Amino acid sequence: MKKKVLFTSLALALGAGFAVTAFAQAKPEVLVKQRQAAMTLQGKYLGPLVGILKGAPYDANVVARNAAFLDALTQMPWDGFAESTKGEKTRALPAIWAEPAKFKQAQDQLRSAVGQLVSASKGGDEGAVKAAIGNVGKACGSCHDNFREK
Amino acid sequence: MKKKVLFTSLALALGAGFAVTAFAQAKPEVLVKQRQAAMTLQGKYLGPLVGILKGAPYDANVVARNAAFLDALTQMPWDGFAESTKGEKTRALPAIWAEPAKFKQAQDQLRSAVGQLVSASKGGDEGAVKAAIGNVGKACGSCHDNFREK
Repeated sequence: MKKKVLFTSLALALGAGFAVTAFAQAKPEVLVKQRQAAMTLQGKYLGPLVGILKGAPYDANVVARNAAFLDALTQMPWDGFAESTKGEKTRALPAIWAEPAKFKQAQDQLRSAVGQLVSASKGGDEGAVKAAIGNVGKACGSCHDNFREK
Repeated sequence: MKKKVLFTSLALALGAGFAVTAFAQAKPEVLVKQRQAAMTLQGKYLGPLVGILKGAPYDANVVARNAAFLDALTQMPWDGFAESTKGEKTRALPAIWAEPAKFKQAQDQLRSAVGQLVSASKGGDEGAVKAAIGNVGKACGSCHDNFREK
């Protein structure tokens, strides 16, 4: 009985479908929603860092927190670009599936830039942090240029 | 000139508005989109853990990765529940703003459960991990019961 209550609560928490399909391949529309969610949150936490480049006050705590969040978030979108999502109406370009090695390279470039930002955020060198923020932004932009509809 | 190219690229990456408003209060609809994105990704990474409770094969690497992601993600939704979003059409209940201390307590309960999951995921005790997954699910469900429309 206790078990049943727990699972009811979990099912509520996760929404219909999730708990049941656990390790099964998620539906294309779910994959799209999840990858877009990761992109939305990357924007949320990169935004204030770009603000610093544009003259907003430098806050080392915000930089360190956002860098750590970006380190997690930039690992999250990629499995959402499954072949099964090719038919979904999104801004994702066919090049994602036509040039998988190039798409993977773009992901790696972002991951590398974020890694450098995390490292810089642990040091005290504002200049290094700002350069790293710029490189993360460039990695985002370069991937969008090649793989996202304008 | 180089600077201009960088900022153009960043602006593309972040989408209109973000880069400009950096530290300004985001618009209510943006806050809603961001907090819903965090909830979506919490579901993505809790789902497979709940699957383990339901009999899916235990994978310590998946558990550790998802626990770490949940540790970041469960810090992300809360600033999205700003008073300015009260009028947005969502499933968020008025209790969020009427009972802020209770809402904060629910957040803390989730954060505590996720902290225990992270700790358990670093040990080798499957039973402890499973109990911790159950507690995270209960924290999600209990907050949804009180603060989210059915």
